[in-house]
Amino acid sequence: MYDSAESRQLEGIGERMYGLVKDLYPVCRSITGEGVRQTLEKLRETIPLTVHEVPSGTAVFDWSVPREWNIRDAYIITPAGDKIAEFSKHNLHVLNYSIPVHRKLTLEELKPHLFTLPDQPDWIPYRTSYYKENWGFCISQRQLDSLSEGEYEVVIDSTLEPGHLTYGEYFIPGETDEEILFSCHTCHPSLCNDNLSGIALATFLADHLSGRKLRYSYRFLFIPGTIGSITWLALNEEKTKHIKHGFVVTCVGDAGAFTYKKSRRGSAQVDRAVLKVLADTRENFREIDFYPYGYDERQYCSPGFNLAVGSLSRSSHGQYPEYHTSADNLELVKPDALEESFHTYADVIDVLENNRTYLNLNPKCEPQLGKRGLYSSVGAAAGSKLKEMALLWVLNLSDGRHDLLRIAERSGETFADIRKAAQALLDSGLLKEAHGESLPGQ
Amino acid sequence: MYDSAESRQLEGIGERMYGLVKDLYPVCRSITGEGVRQTLEKLRETIPLTVHEVPSGTAVFDWSVPREWNIRDAYIITPAGDKIAEFSKHNLHVLNYSIPVHRKLTLEELKPHLFTLPDQPDWIPYRTSYYKENWGFCISQRQLDSLSEGEYEVVIDSTLEPGHLTYGEYFIPGETDEEILFSCHTCHPSLCNDNLSGIALATFLADHLSGRKLRYSYRFLFIPGTIGSITWLALNEEKTKHIKHGFVVTCVGDAGAFTYKKSRRGSAQVDRAVLKVLADTRENFREIDFYPYGYDERQYCSPGFNLAVGSLSRSSHGQYPEYHTSADNLELVKPDALEESFHTYADVIDVLENNRTYLNLNPKCEPQLGKRGLYSSVGAAAGSKLKEMALLWVLNLSDGRHDLLRIAERSGETFADIRKAAQALLDSGLLKEAHGESLPGQ
Amino acid sequence: MYDSAESRQLEGIGERMYGLVKDLYPVCRSITGEGVRQTLEKLRETIPLTVHEVPSGTAVFDWSVPREWNIRDAYIITPAGDKIAEFSKHNLHVLNYSIPVHRKLTLEELKPHLFTLPDQPDWIPYRTSYYKENWGFCISQRQLDSLSEGEYEVVIDSTLEPGHLTYGEYFIPGETDEEILFSCHTCHPSLCNDNLSGIALATFLADHLSGRKLRYSYRFLFIPGTIGSITWLALNEEKTKHIKHGFVVTCVGDAGAFTYKKSRRGSAQVDRAVLKVLADTRENFREIDFYPYGYDERQYCSPGFNLAVGSLSRSSHGQYPEYHTSADNLELVKPDALEESFHTYADVIDVLENNRTYLNLNPKCEPQLGKRGLYSSVGAAAGSKLKEMALLWVLNLSDGRHDLLRIAERSGETFADIRKAAQALLDSGLLKEAHGESLPGQ
Repeated sequence: MYDSAESRQLEGIGERMYGLVKDLYPVCRSITGEGVRQTLEKLRETIPLTVHEVPSGTAVFDWSVPREWNIRDAYIITPAGDKIAEFSKHNLHVLNYSIPVHRKLTLEELKPHLFTLPDQPDWIPYRTSYYKENWGFCISQRQLDSLSEGEYEVVIDSTLEPGHLTYGEYFIPGETDEEILFSCHTCHPSLCNDNLSGIALATFLADHLSGRKLRYSYRFLFIPGTIGSITWLALNEEKTKHIKHGFVVTCVGDAGAFTYKKSRRGSAQVDRAVLKVLADTRENFREIDFYPYGYDERQYCSPGFNLAVGSLSRSSHGQYPEYHTSADNLELVKPDALEESFHTYADVIDVLENNRTYLNLNPKCEPQLGKRGLYSSVGAAAGSKLKEMALLWVLNLSDGRHDLLRIAERSGETFADIRKAAQALLDSGLLKEAHGESLPGQ
Repeated sequence: MYDSAESRQLEGIGERMYGLVKDLYPVCRSITGEGVRQTLEKLRETIPLTVHEVPSGTAVFDWSVPREWNIRDAYIITPAGDKIAEFSKHNLHVLNYSIPVHRKLTLEELKPHLFTLPDQPDWIPYRTSYYKENWGFCISQRQLDSLSEGEYEVVIDSTLEPGHLTYGEYFIPGETDEEILFSCHTCHPSLCNDNLSGIALATFLADHLSGRKLRYSYRFLFIPGTIGSITWLALNEEKTKHIKHGFVVTCVGDAGAFTYKKSRRGSAQVDRAVLKVLADTRENFREIDFYPYGYDERQYCSPGFNLAVGSLSRSSHGQYPEYHTSADNLELVKPDALEESFHTYADVIDVLENNRTYLNLNPKCEPQLGKRGLYSSVGAAAGSKLKEMALLWVLNLSDGRHDLLRIAERSGETFADIRKAAQALLDSGLLKEAHGESLPGQ
Repeated sequence: MYDSAESRQLEGIGERMYGLVKDLYPVCRSITGEGVRQTLEKLRETIPLTVHEVPSGTAVFDWSVPREWNIRDAYIITPAGDKIAEFSKHNLHVLNYSIPVHRKLTLEELKPHLFTLPDQPDWIPYRTSYYKENWGFCISQRQLDSLSEGEYEVVIDSTLEPGHLTYGEYFIPGETDEEILFSCHTCHPSLCNDNLSGIALATFLADHLSGRKLRYSYRFLFIPGTIGSITWLALNEEKTKHIKHGFVVTCVGDAGAFTYKKSRRGSAQVDRAVLKVLADTRENFREIDFYPYGYDERQYCSPGFNLAVGSLSRSSHGQYPEYHTSADNLELVKPDALEESFHTYADVIDVLENNRTYLNLNPKCEPQLGKRGLYSSVGAAAGSKLKEMALLWVLNLSDGRHDLLRIAERSGETFADIRKAAQALLDSGLLKEAHGESLPGQ
């Protein structure tokens, strides 16, 4: 779907996305705090997003914006004097949102504050405690097993104080005020697929769309999970009525096959567009029904909003072993996979931008395509229909009740072929856009 | 679904049901007559049902209540002087509704009056001739094969005279006048699964429901098949508008897997409730579409009534070899199977009693479950979602358009879990019952 | 569905159809010209069809009736002086609609005018060039491979001049002005299955229906493909509103299983009728969705008409190797297959003629069938329901919302059995035809 200038512009896009993931990997993000600000500042090198700061305590529907969490250091000193679980070595070592602590205690007292993954003894788990004050460390099971009795010293040099919830927003105006939303979460620390891959994809997609002639307006949100989407929705409720289609972007960098989790509506245009692109371009993919768990689609699809927001990922929420562990790292995410995901999102945008409903201006019998140069002249050759089928389908179903996506679905032709056929018919004066009209008697 | 007092009360229910089957087995029932009266009298030891007597000749729609049939004795004397086909030994030996006869005749003259099952040479068939005057005997094929030429004497000491059609009715009033109907037939003589099992289940279910606080009113009918339901419907047409859900109860005592024959409507609430209970609790079951044959659902689902009446059985009408033979006996029916059937009916009642539609009072984004003690506090642990999924589904779909049964169906959670979640959310003030309202924009 | 007089009349119908195919095989048809006139004249020996002549240049929607093409002779003289590709030996040898030519040229100059089938080296292809002036020959690949360098002489003695488009039409008036359309194409030269088989079937079906008492009126069109249906539709647009059901009749003579290509509507009564007849009478058949290619259904189902026209064939358009080659000959078509196709069409007509919607006049409970002689008197025998099921289904679903076809579909009974049951119930006064009424509460 790209012209050659675009293709050139997109060369190496996978490597560039991967580069951004690599740069952001060491930052300790959370739902608030400096890590988020650093991350957004980094994205501003590529897209001119706006950074919003929402004060702690702001009421957002049933919730309240929490205090801001910042951390400088954290570690444990073993009875033997070794420093372990060092935050400076891996930011997953600290229970995210740990309150400050500095004390000595026995192994028995320490243990309730240690989190491990017994099934994956070398991996560090990712754990949080946003809404209940607690402190803790995440370590490998092997590390836990090696700890001996004695006195331990724990240090968490953090603060949990009134401050702000920080999020980024980038809006690209199009010809209409109907919007397509892309939402990705910025609250995960050193985790690559979930969700640095999504941040990178959203950033480069926004950059790619900037300055193009677009039918839809596009809104990109870089927000902390759950509280971020709740905050944005609470403060921008009026804007939601413009959102026609939307995506929660995450887990788009691993090598797994694509997964599409449909919106709560189930057969919204965005759902059909994604599934048609996947059917047109992929041998295998998974389609799953909406369920009220996972990422921020939980909020966008809550019954009071019920937005047409789905989630297009590769491996999906909780469905890969590395999920929420230290193994969701720079090895798991691949430049090629990121690039393929980028193009798949771009293909879906192409469908949404170009999906129109037309009226066949010559609806009684077929028009004579031959005299318009749209038909091979020697009839009845076995292969001759192949090129013309898309033309015939568009003519046959352009009755004002089938959009191009529906025609592509019903015909089995790719959306790209159907769109090309519609363009040729438009150019020949055989179609016009249907603005709510339809042929009688359909 | 039972509290402990109830569980205690239900202990041994299968054995008690089996005991009733055993007591009723020897009685020679028909569509009218003393056998029906004896049967109903026996049931009155458990539930205070009302016995109705409808005079012969009463017009009931296209039918007329037939004359009352009673029988004292029947047998055949062979040429060798042996007494065979003795009614006193097995009441299936006599063609049900045989007119009185006492004559001598040749084997050839006798044969048209003898009914056997060639495929099951040791079993006695069950045959009736309610609406065409006839007499006959049902014997085993082996018996028939052993008969030699000569003069036979046949004796059927029966009467077919103006009298009454007798049926039992038991009504349990609930909070509303909307009714759930349980209908079982009382016209089969010594046949256990069809339908002493149904009589026993209906009786003990009625007893179990008596005196409880119930949303629905419950009506139990103990009626002869076909003419009984026609008679009841004709004489109680006004009452049918209160019947919201109903069951024809039969064949619930054999060891087969459950079968549910849907109502003519096909997706009435009762159909969905039964199928969800079976899906939640059974590994195998059969779902069959309505067809206008079988038991009294034929009448309840006739197009002039079209009631939401299905039939939940184990093996079903005509689908087991012992059907309508002397092998449908006390061996075929098992206490355990009766008990399991009882509990399955009770589970369905539980769904119908508790199926409500709610409105999420916090429909924009998720409410904060944590601050209400409804959510585990340390997020992101792999297993944490399991407990909360039912809560999240109820919140997400409580838009006034999904009842709890629909939520259970769509989520894949059991109805019991969905109901428990809804109760917790109600208790937290997050839901209210929807009385026809629904969220906008759904 | 035939009475015995009809059965006698239909004896040998397959052989008679095959005889007509044989007679018409040598004629060189095209979309215009003498071959079409000869063909229609031949059909007039069986049915009194009207021959219409539409002048060249007549505007028909987006098209214009083309000049008339006639051909007397065509051949090639090889350098060795041999005469090949002789029109007089096989009329497929000439590119249909070839302009006249007589010249000498090299093999290299000739080759672009030669058409072959490399995959089927012994077969002659069928090619046309109706709307782009061209000339050419169709020969076997083997023939092409044997040609040596040198000077060739080509002769095509044809004319392409103002004249007429010729088509045949036969209308059989019925009790109502609602019509069933049968359309077959008459433009193919020596090709048997496509479409002499269809011409023969339509002709003998028209003959069979002539003079019978019919509910529907019947219209048979014998027209050139594409331009013929466009011409008819353009000149008879007013009549199309009477067309309730229709068929494009072609490829009905080969030994393949039946194929039904549904109308664009997808579940029109004609679609349901054909599929039910095939389900009732065939072990295997193929059901395919409408697509805007194939035969004249492309025009009848164009969005400005969207008629309920399907296509019932055996092997279908382009789906058998002999399609559009010299192998679509008198060997491919079989009398038995033609006869079976005839009866299948007749069965479908039988469904359409007899499909009515009834009201059960005794809708509350079942009527007593026994007293009307419609029910076996000794109940409960295992086989007894078989005969009565159709009666019970018709009674149960005759609520004014189910036509007999729907009842047959839902019950799984054959349409013939359902129709017979409905007749018996009508005769007993238990049904009346529903003229838009329906039972309340359905």
